[in-house]
Amino acid sequence: MRGNKPPKKPSKSGEDRLIERFFRPLAKHPAALGLMDDVALMTPPAGADLVLKTDAIIGGVHFFPDDAADAVAKKALRVNLSDLAAKGAKPAGFLLALALPQDIGEDWLADFARGLGADADSYGCPLLGGDTDLTPGPVTISIAAFGFVPHGAMVRRAGAKAGETVVATGSIGDAALGLLLRREPKRPVFAKLDGKAKAHLAERYLLPQPRLALASALREHASAAIDVSDGLVGDLMKLAAVSGVGAQIEVKRVPFSPAARMVLAAEPSLTETALTGGDDYEILATVPAERLASFQAAAKSAGVELTAIGRIEPSEGVEVLAEDGRPLALARTSFSHF
Amino acid sequence: MRGNKPPKKPSKSGEDRLIERFFRPLAKHPAALGLMDDVALMTPPAGADLVLKTDAIIGGVHFFPDDAADAVAKKALRVNLSDLAAKGAKPAGFLLALALPQDIGEDWLADFARGLGADADSYGCPLLGGDTDLTPGPVTISIAAFGFVPHGAMVRRAGAKAGETVVATGSIGDAALGLLLRREPKRPVFAKLDGKAKAHLAERYLLPQPRLALASALREHASAAIDVSDGLVGDLMKLAAVSGVGAQIEVKRVPFSPAARMVLAAEPSLTETALTGGDDYEILATVPAERLASFQAAAKSAGVELTAIGRIEPSEGVEVLAEDGRPLALARTSFSHF
Repeated sequence: MRGNKPPKKPSKSGEDRLIERFFRPLAKHPAALGLMDDVALMTPPAGADLVLKTDAIIGGVHFFPDDAADAVAKKALRVNLSDLAAKGAKPAGFLLALALPQDIGEDWLADFARGLGADADSYGCPLLGGDTDLTPGPVTISIAAFGFVPHGAMVRRAGAKAGETVVATGSIGDAALGLLLRREPKRPVFAKLDGKAKAHLAERYLLPQPRLALASALREHASAAIDVSDGLVGDLMKLAAVSGVGAQIEVKRVPFSPAARMVLAAEPSLTETALTGGDDYEILATVPAERLASFQAAAKSAGVELTAIGRIEPSEGVEVLAEDGRPLALARTSFSHF
Repeated sequence: MRGNKPPKKPSKSGEDRLIERFFRPLAKHPAALGLMDDVALMTPPAGADLVLKTDAIIGGVHFFPDDAADAVAKKALRVNLSDLAAKGAKPAGFLLALALPQDIGEDWLADFARGLGADADSYGCPLLGGDTDLTPGPVTISIAAFGFVPHGAMVRRAGAKAGETVVATGSIGDAALGLLLRREPKRPVFAKLDGKAKAHLAERYLLPQPRLALASALREHASAAIDVSDGLVGDLMKLAAVSGVGAQIEVKRVPFSPAARMVLAAEPSLTETALTGGDDYEILATVPAERLASFQAAAKSAGVELTAIGRIEPSEGVEVLAEDGRPLALARTSFSHF
């Protein structure tokens, strides 16, 4: 009950200032309501199904604390967009829950917001709302992304049938080898690589490339699909198990980049790392024989590399054939932080 | 290239086992796809707008590390549901991004999942998907909740007009006083309270009560609304500012619980804490004069207390009149962790 003049305007908290300076400029889409309401509001397109995904990345767990903040922001968004892509969905927007250490600094935040805004624009997936908090722990970025597909057209994990072809986009194993390079730069195998090959592997770990350009072709041609985030073999096992089928893939057909091929030639036991290490953010899909050529043509015109790596088998279980044609036994099939 | 038998089934990681044991039983809604796909999938109701919200709570920041895990889960969901309620939306589901310390323990997880499942059922807001990660930091629970409103019917913050009545649901200030009680149990003012009054304040801090029962009445009668999470005065300032109006409220009309009244009578300077401390998770709304009686009747039949506390003024700025009728000056108007 002091005698001061009463406040007449909302006083801006640190959080308000942070949002105003770094995040409001990103919230250009009308559904964000300028970040001036409690929620985001969007009218779904007529005849569309809503597809929703959340994935978080944590400093020291999913990225290195000294990774560039703009790349961290892009990774946080892209790991979610990769799932939407694998389901044939078109992104519509995302929500951001950001937990920040007290000492994060304005430079980091400015870089983070710049990276996030650039990706939101280039993938057509605007920031629609969020929450920022202080944490005594590491930077924790939880994104919930959502998109739409024509009603009934989502590509599911379940749906693969015996006789279909297993295809993978892009290249497999680069990110897992890039992580190894980041952790063990002096490992002898990396001494054989030139700067360009090293940069390729490092970049593939740092920055996923969600295959959104393939979404409509997937809806048209694929019988089942999964985002390859936990390792090619483990994710194929998940797709096959939920479809009630098995699969056989051949290592010699798996699309390895030239840099990965150099590493695997020099240290063949890293094949397991490449096949199971995760962070590929490629799409693994199954295609009926009569659709394969059209799917490949559609992928080509979308600018996405697509490689047939094996086939769906009637009996459950996934078999990986090594270069010599013998079954490859893997100590683990996918990556887990637990 | 070892000679072991190749694995035939997906090997279950620690994360898979955790999901299977604690979270799959909650994912009963068909949109969750049994947590067996990359995403959740829902067909929006015809003619509905989609309302989306994300809010996170962090151990040691938004709850005490020794709070019961089932209450923590409920709080994490309810802080999001409170926003949907204030917008007049009906919850449809939520996604959970959960970051857990290595040593969290199965008892904590079992209690957490039990609390989350109970609230998901009682509020009709099912778990549709999620992500679990290990963190070197504290438990961090990021929820993205979404719901639907009839097209065009969402109650916005902007929309209050001069002459309208300002109303608040439930009681104000209990949670802020409950937090103070938790932090300073030996503060002299609390010695005057009996066990029941103390339990009331503590419970109001621990467990928000989202006013979803009021959602349809808000859509029908309110011109603007906001969820009171950062303090009554600060949240009213936000509503007024974005509506381009001002407001005057009277402390003597603010709905304080009997427990809060006892505290404020004994230590009047805590009035500021009660009015600005946050965590109320009540709804502040504005109502045209001709709608007030119908709104009050609708609230009564929904079982939600609704109290008129002031009016909207044409000129910007929010004035709080103390018990003695003089303007109250507040050192701060809302709560912020920053």
